[in-house]
Amino acid sequence: MVTQAYGAYAADRMLEPIEIARREPGPHDVQIDIAWCGVCHSDLHTIRSEWAGTHYPCVPGHEIVGTVSAVGTAVSGFAVGDTVGVGCMVDSCQHCPSCGEGLEQFCENGFTGTYNGATPDAPGHTLGGYSQRIVVSDKFVLKIRHSEDQLAAVAPLLCAGITTWSPLRHWKAGPGKKVGIVGIGGLGHMGVKLAHALGAETVAFTTSEAKRQDALDLGADQVIVSRNADEMAAHANSFDLILNTVAVSHDLDAYTALLKRDGALVLVGVPEHRHPAPDVSALIFKRRSIAGSLIGGIAETQEMLDFCAEKGIVAEIETIAAQDIDRAYDRMVKSDVKYRFVIDIATMANG
Amino acid sequence: MVTQAYGAYAADRMLEPIEIARREPGPHDVQIDIAWCGVCHSDLHTIRSEWAGTHYPCVPGHEIVGTVSAVGTAVSGFAVGDTVGVGCMVDSCQHCPSCGEGLEQFCENGFTGTYNGATPDAPGHTLGGYSQRIVVSDKFVLKIRHSEDQLAAVAPLLCAGITTWSPLRHWKAGPGKKVGIVGIGGLGHMGVKLAHALGAETVAFTTSEAKRQDALDLGADQVIVSRNADEMAAHANSFDLILNTVAVSHDLDAYTALLKRDGALVLVGVPEHRHPAPDVSALIFKRRSIAGSLIGGIAETQEMLDFCAEKGIVAEIETIAAQDIDRAYDRMVKSDVKYRFVIDIATMANG
Repeated sequence: MVTQAYGAYAADRMLEPIEIARREPGPHDVQIDIAWCGVCHSDLHTIRSEWAGTHYPCVPGHEIVGTVSAVGTAVSGFAVGDTVGVGCMVDSCQHCPSCGEGLEQFCENGFTGTYNGATPDAPGHTLGGYSQRIVVSDKFVLKIRHSEDQLAAVAPLLCAGITTWSPLRHWKAGPGKKVGIVGIGGLGHMGVKLAHALGAETVAFTTSEAKRQDALDLGADQVIVSRNADEMAAHANSFDLILNTVAVSHDLDAYTALLKRDGALVLVGVPEHRHPAPDVSALIFKRRSIAGSLIGGIAETQEMLDFCAEKGIVAEIETIAAQDIDRAYDRMVKSDVKYRFVIDIATMANG
Repeated sequence: MVTQAYGAYAADRMLEPIEIARREPGPHDVQIDIAWCGVCHSDLHTIRSEWAGTHYPCVPGHEIVGTVSAVGTAVSGFAVGDTVGVGCMVDSCQHCPSCGEGLEQFCENGFTGTYNGATPDAPGHTLGGYSQRIVVSDKFVLKIRHSEDQLAAVAPLLCAGITTWSPLRHWKAGPGKKVGIVGIGGLGHMGVKLAHALGAETVAFTTSEAKRQDALDLGADQVIVSRNADEMAAHANSFDLILNTVAVSHDLDAYTALLKRDGALVLVGVPEHRHPAPDVSALIFKRRSIAGSLIGGIAETQEMLDFCAEKGIVAEIETIAAQDIDRAYDRMVKSDVKYRFVIDIATMANG
């Protein structure tokens, strides 16, 4: 099945319209006509080979929202016409302990990424959501219960949303807890919205005075400009959880010092160069921890989507045409987006 | 009340017999005639001013076992003749949340260390257990239920024991859990004994092939020589908890890689130079954490002592005379002790 897509043939080439093959839906497959696809930093890192191991042609995109256009004979949970989503994973082993616990992102045998993952389908690696159509095992398809006019802004929930939701839930953000979100970008702005909606006292950390009002508008109870040492010191020993979305090397000690006893600093991004070595005495003298978290499992992604639908939560986005993806990447690198680009896949028909 | 002690008047002076004052027991105080005092690395760091802020004269010692020789009028839990212990703390604020939870080691207002802590008593800082007598608030006195012949070897439980017990309990070491203990010294040898006694599958990590049999004798189910990359790799992704007692800068990634999903690497020692910056991707891709732990609270110290008395657990020790402390320090620096020196306080009468 030939499908129109946008991708690149090499790390140093621009994205361009390409034709890719999608498999015919098998018994357990759901075929989705894609309407919207969010643009994640990982897309750029992968397509430009900034991380090792990119396979070309590369079609990124793992914040996918669309409509079911066919289902396999064994699929009972989805029907043609349903609004659905696909996130960062399209498969996992389904028999390891992590898969058994619904934590497919930690599949002991490695989950299959929505793009650049190993697959028996041509061309031997998965091709993502910058395309008009995708075929995905029903276990990795999410139900979307938001209204039609919200769908573009739902797309980023599939990666940015779940990546912040999962640690907020795992470390029990909620009423009575003080939660910090470091970095007000694609991930962080969702972290602020979700922590606030979960009932936690939510504090946004930003390096930019200019983002102070924006962060309040997103739902932060307080905003700390992290370059201001006095502002930071006033919050010493007060946080239960600080979710750090900044994937650039920076001083972690400034944040561990703000945690209460037993508090956790949770990182969701891998910087190109390591963060400076942390001061372990700050961990020892308050039994604090530094931890990591990776996207989220399928069940908790559905939980997050349902929670967001009920609360009317979506991402803050700017929609773009497929022809503008390269330009969007350049702006994203400069953090010149509030806060996520979403590709209007209908524009591919013009490609 | 004049008491004979061993201490130093300056960082560059040897220990020598000195006379110190102990307060008369107040209503809530317990006066203890000390029989045994363990020798901890912290004693050496403090007396030699290797850490900031040593007050002189300095009398170290916070692994204290002795006999009650007087009690204050309001003391009901202890009587003259009782065998008791004192660990790293002799006071705390008693009204902060951590004190309220029995976690005095995390007292928000700072606990009072058994030596070198602030006190209204002369000379303005606390003086530790290298002395014939000590007077301590009853809240910080522990009951010792071991037999008379075990008492010298009980002393190290008051610091080395509780420092390993507390994280083993907090991170739920027990049946069905695989627990690693890094470093087979004063702390680590207790970690191996306690993890084993708690029913965990216990793995000892050592840099020294020569300690392999010793670690098995202590109760390890397996021993890994950490310099052997193959031996390390065979245990990848398998530990629930690794308790790292090594307070010298070293590569933490070698241990985080051995943790299961959600596993924790818990540090109990602060190295002079920071550990190399850890690879946070090893945290993110398995939701692992690096945490710290500090001694333990009074209630859990009593719990540990009672557990050890019931199971017949004591430290492996070498007893020394007070006159030999400097030599013992030199041997301790070279790890030339299995595994803890304990001062026979009766020898001070010969000083």
